[in-house]
Amino acid sequence: MKSAVTSVVRTASRLRPLAHVSTIKAMTTTTKPAASMATAQVAEQTRSEQPFFPDEPFKPRMRTSIPGPESKKAIEDLHKVFDTRSLNMMVNYQNSFGNYIADLDGNVLLDVFAQIASIPVGYSNPTLLAAATSPEMASAIINRPALGSFPQHDWAEILRTGVLKVAPKGLDQVVTAMAGSDANELAYKAAFMWKRRQERGGGDVEFSDEEIASAMNNKAPGSPHMSILSFRSAFHGRLFGSLSTTRSKPVHKLDIPAFDWPQASFPHLRYPLADHVSENAAEEARCLAETEDLIKNFRHPVVAVVVEPVQAEGGDNHATPTFFKGLRDITRRNDVMFIVDEVQTGVGATGRFWAHDHWNMADPPDMVTFSKKAQTAGYYFGNPDLRPNKPYRQFNTWMGDPARAILFRAIIQEIERLNLVESTAQVGEYLYSGLERLAERYPYEIQNLRGKGQGTFLAWDSPTRDDFLKRAKGLGINIGGSGERAVRLRPMLIFQKHHADILLEATEKLVST
Amino acid sequence: MKSAVTSVVRTASRLRPLAHVSTIKAMTTTTKPAASMATAQVAEQTRSEQPFFPDEPFKPRMRTSIPGPESKKAIEDLHKVFDTRSLNMMVNYQNSFGNYIADLDGNVLLDVFAQIASIPVGYSNPTLLAAATSPEMASAIINRPALGSFPQHDWAEILRTGVLKVAPKGLDQVVTAMAGSDANELAYKAAFMWKRRQERGGGDVEFSDEEIASAMNNKAPGSPHMSILSFRSAFHGRLFGSLSTTRSKPVHKLDIPAFDWPQASFPHLRYPLADHVSENAAEEARCLAETEDLIKNFRHPVVAVVVEPVQAEGGDNHATPTFFKGLRDITRRNDVMFIVDEVQTGVGATGRFWAHDHWNMADPPDMVTFSKKAQTAGYYFGNPDLRPNKPYRQFNTWMGDPARAILFRAIIQEIERLNLVESTAQVGEYLYSGLERLAERYPYEIQNLRGKGQGTFLAWDSPTRDDFLKRAKGLGINIGGSGERAVRLRPMLIFQKHHADILLEATEKLVST
Repeated sequence: MKSAVTSVVRTASRLRPLAHVSTIKAMTTTTKPAASMATAQVAEQTRSEQPFFPDEPFKPRMRTSIPGPESKKAIEDLHKVFDTRSLNMMVNYQNSFGNYIADLDGNVLLDVFAQIASIPVGYSNPTLLAAATSPEMASAIINRPALGSFPQHDWAEILRTGVLKVAPKGLDQVVTAMAGSDANELAYKAAFMWKRRQERGGGDVEFSDEEIASAMNNKAPGSPHMSILSFRSAFHGRLFGSLSTTRSKPVHKLDIPAFDWPQASFPHLRYPLADHVSENAAEEARCLAETEDLIKNFRHPVVAVVVEPVQAEGGDNHATPTFFKGLRDITRRNDVMFIVDEVQTGVGATGRFWAHDHWNMADPPDMVTFSKKAQTAGYYFGNPDLRPNKPYRQFNTWMGDPARAILFRAIIQEIERLNLVESTAQVGEYLYSGLERLAERYPYEIQNLRGKGQGTFLAWDSPTRDDFLKRAKGLGINIGGSGERAVRLRPMLIFQKHHADILLEATEKLVST
Repeated sequence: MKSAVTSVVRTASRLRPLAHVSTIKAMTTTTKPAASMATAQVAEQTRSEQPFFPDEPFKPRMRTSIPGPESKKAIEDLHKVFDTRSLNMMVNYQNSFGNYIADLDGNVLLDVFAQIASIPVGYSNPTLLAAATSPEMASAIINRPALGSFPQHDWAEILRTGVLKVAPKGLDQVVTAMAGSDANELAYKAAFMWKRRQERGGGDVEFSDEEIASAMNNKAPGSPHMSILSFRSAFHGRLFGSLSTTRSKPVHKLDIPAFDWPQASFPHLRYPLADHVSENAAEEARCLAETEDLIKNFRHPVVAVVVEPVQAEGGDNHATPTFFKGLRDITRRNDVMFIVDEVQTGVGATGRFWAHDHWNMADPPDMVTFSKKAQTAGYYFGNPDLRPNKPYRQFNTWMGDPARAILFRAIIQEIERLNLVESTAQVGEYLYSGLERLAERYPYEIQNLRGKGQGTFLAWDSPTRDDFLKRAKGLGINIGGSGERAVRLRPMLIFQKHHADILLEATEKLVST
């Protein structure tokens, strides 16, 4: 049975995507950049590396300062209708390819910020382009379903071959959402419903008249005074519930009403780790004790602990597997949910598909939330008791977006085809070693280098961070920051050693002059 | 300069979309249905009507009961990984066309529920298909930007020719979002920031140390005890902030912590309106007085009033322009924001592009939120003071989705091409008249018919509502309910008089047997 959409669109999917990559390649494929100083010896090792995308630009090319004249005009125009005060760079995405981002003035930059850690397999990726021009994508875009009530016939298959194919160990179900913030909020809602059900004795106990009446009035017991515990410097989103668990920066929170929920200290590790082993272990033990004390004693009962494997927005703060295993133990023995927010860490960037894979826990988290590099969002869970006792309790009109779920499936295929998680682990080691050498030579400029063994999810503190980021752009490198003074590296999964060489060379230039 | 994406995808956009609509047409184009009883005389009038889509099925076709055997298998399979207890119908969207929705068992239904009021111009719409297979859509899908920091070069143009082209009168700016819930929450956040700024004397006054420290701790004054006023039976979404303003059904709210925010009574009008003029006027005056009293006296200062032009999820509750103008006056004189939630009413369904256009107010709302039929979401505003005083205060990674904004632009083009708002106004009059005749004959089965003059945004109360909806499916009509006992009609904008005839005929069958 030939469908309406299929008959039209399938021609597009037969095209060989990106048979000719035109502009950018011509603009930037010139001679190999001269390796300098500390990076000279490592560049040698990468000569023989096969690029994932032979048509990718060979190096950055800067024609103007940023923003250049064309970008300035466009920004001024956009500002009339859309707030541009947080604008970093105006981009021509159709001219961007692989690890390289193009602006409106002929500048092409190596991008290790990647849309705030959200581009997984490169700009204008051919595999994704094939998925984006497929008949099923066209139908998903124009026939958007209310998934909870009118799912499409192949939704189970799209989930199984996509979102669920990469589900964390032990978690075999998913609730889909729109972005990281609402993914976290839906997980929180599941935790509240689970705990109240548990308090009622489990099963399908009916709500009391008092609960029903009070809930409609935003009062307890129907709307209970219960809480989610998060950590200092955490970032979990900016809607009202998620913002109540976000503690990274005042600008996120000022003037917005918040729930009276508890925060525990997140470990403040000292670097290099090898020199501060017992001190750091004591710090983690202190934070665990504080967490358990809050769970037992906070004025509003805690139903869940939410934590990022690496606090990203809050300044790239790491903790050891011992800390996270400790959280799992504490939440288990106090009967509260353990939610791991993998919105920024998930989908390969740490050299494992999920960052919490590094912890090697036999007992998995209760829920894991995702977004960003997945290009879709939601939370995984395994415990059947986390399905609410009645339908429509975890529900909304769209419940995610099949178009974006289809894209995530293509992202997973590309990750598998190029073995990108393993590659990211290896490139991360390589990049870390190069940065370590630079940190030895420039200990003031590169402080607290961190992320060893965490793929390319690396960061360091810079006493002149904002200036560093700005000057990096002048050298053709787009880098982001996190917290007050961290330089945050978030390359895509297709970032290779030869890209690392360019980044290391530029970093050396920046810290040495 | 030819871009990478353009060179690949443009072939697709040259195809004539849907040159052959295959399956559905063949399945269902048979003889005209025999008009029966009360609808016989009106069917005559529609003989000469030009269908918008000649290839659309001519009438529903039922092969099995719903769910049929194929659907049952698929539902059982999906349930293993995705909660299907709220499932209404398993759909094959690629076989759905125009006003007709197809399942997996060869059944084709006239759809007047339309994905909970979210499909604007029909399934597999050719104009949307052209947009969905365009090079710019492909790039938007695979190169998703962090819009606040790295907007695409043509974002201003996409907004101006799309989202902003249909901006409500007096509102010339937009903040884009993902869905109705977060659109409302972002509007609430804007209201809180605006009010606190006003309290500080306006301008760019710095935050105090106390505000900064307390906000990080979820405490006042940084996280102020302020509130949003909504109405009984309102629905504004199900995230933590929006859910605190939702008051439609306990199942939405039970077990979820909520803010202590006020609710005022929404008018409870009696029908037919012409027979209860003074009584209804008194009811609206009572609700207005209660609203103003809460604004003046509620324990947590009110910064905004949010209201739907028609309470949809809450049971299709209407009020008159007098009531809404009264709200505008009250909010103006008490210096609080007036937010109109057009998530369900917007984009043409009431016979005006925005439902609040019916109110003919000289002084527009402060913010208008949208989603559903726009297939993207956000809030419009005009007052420059609603832009927060610093960047990054109204910010998140994606800030909407350009792919969906491009689709909204195509939807607007299709609405203009076919003059669908005007058409919906006319078809709505026709449908209302037909229902009015049926209500006269079956006054017990069709009570409180409402929505006259509001396009096809019609509803009535049924003493056996759930049974009515179920039996309607058996006749090949997909209808939704709202509130406890309302039958809610939410046809698409391409719903024509000949579709209305089919709906009227089926309704008569259902209420007369």
